Amino acid sequence: MKLKVIAFDADDTLWVNEPYFQNTERKFCSLLEDFLPEHDISKELFKVEVDNLPLYGYGIKGYILSMIEAALKISDNKIGIDTINIILQYGREMLNEPIELLDGVEHVLSTLKTDYRLVVATKGDLLDQERKLKKSGLSHYFHHIEIMSDKKEDDYIKLIKHLDIQPEEFMMVGNSLKSDVMPVLNIGGYAIHVPYHTTWAHEHVETSLSHEKFMQADKLADILSSVKR
Amino acid sequence: MKLKVIAFDADDTLWVNEPYFQNTERKFCSLLEDFLPEHDISKELFKVEVDNLPLYGYGIKGYILSMIEAALKISDNKIGIDTINIILQYGREMLNEPIELLDGVEHVLSTLKTDYRLVVATKGDLLDQERKLKKSGLSHYFHHIEIMSDKKEDDYIKLIKHLDIQPEEFMMVGNSLKSDVMPVLNIGGYAIHVPYHTTWAHEHVETSLSHEKFMQADKLADILSSVKR
Repeated sequence: MKLKVIAFDADDTLWVNEPYFQNTERKFCSLLEDFLPEHDISKELFKVEVDNLPLYGYGIKGYILSMIEAALKISDNKIGIDTINIILQYGREMLNEPIELLDGVEHVLSTLKTDYRLVVATKGDLLDQERKLKKSGLSHYFHHIEIMSDKKEDDYIKLIKHLDIQPEEFMMVGNSLKSDVMPVLNIGGYAIHVPYHTTWAHEHVETSLSHEKFMQADKLADILSSVKR
Repeated sequence: MKLKVIAFDADDTLWVNEPYFQNTERKFCSLLEDFLPEHDISKELFKVEVDNLPLYGYGIKGYILSMIEAALKISDNKIGIDTINIILQYGREMLNEPIELLDGVEHVLSTLKTDYRLVVATKGDLLDQERKLKKSGLSHYFHHIEIMSDKKEDDYIKLIKHLDIQPEEFMMVGNSLKSDVMPVLNIGGYAIHVPYHTTWAHEHVETSLSHEKFMQADKLADILSSVKR
């Protein structure tokens, strides 16, 4: 291995994220319970979110806009205008959530920092991810944050060009097989999967992967045995 | 000059942008004309936008959320729920606006590309700016897009570190004295101001600037005499 850059996904790899979305979704379902059963509200919200991804991209702002749109659809424009205020408030709360680091993060980053250029490579809103990184106290471990509009093969090719390195000098570490692992392997990079206990339906894939540049880790600290020089 | 990277602001430097916001704002004012005079609606919307900048950052998604919040405030929660649908639709239209290049852009980029690394350095939403760059047909001139959560001195220091260059190897070209010029001069870089006929109030400053690393251009093509090798 002649690795130069190790990129870490942020949400649910470095810190807790998906539970905050799930918590908001539960409140959203309660808000609309007069109109549909909870399961159908979730389904409808998911549909609106996925339909809006090409337009809004990832991140909390797009999620708030999708909640508003879904509330109008689910209620057939019959919700009170106050509901919109409540949804805007949910968004503000999400943007102000505290940062809870996952186990082993600081140890892993401080160990790898001396040998590699570390970057954060994440989807979502730049300002929000920068704010989270700052709150996390991890900023000094990273060369910079890369915000990616998506995590498909083309996006990683662009990222690697931007980093001025070759694919075989790049490793991605993250909790999503779909976004952090498979596209990176497909373009010739290394990838380590560190699962998180819950995954957004849009990121979910069923697979058992075997590849010479792939490693499966149970928890973040396990990656050290694979990459420490 | 030992310039390596020339960064171009995007909106209202490479292509038309502010007129689309102004057009949407006019429609927003008409929508709420029963509640307040147009001038006061604009003022209220601007206040909500600026108050939300630390939370939402720049870009169309934050602007849509601010329009929704302002509509609720201005009407004291008395607007019909349909209005929310109309505002969401304004947002979709903005995100789908065509790209209209400003004069001389292609000539300038093709001339400078051989001698410098060119990047786009812009605030706003990554996905939206990437989409605009793609639609513009200008992608091949640029090494990559830098999305900045803000354009203050610290943000440029981060950008220059990220580009792995020194401040005196960096030049910024843009239409905003406040965002594209002054912070760059303050950290030791070069800056060229190319004004656009209309500027968002938040970006407006009154100044007559004289600085050895500053150049004032009337139009984009004028920058060539300053930087062509």
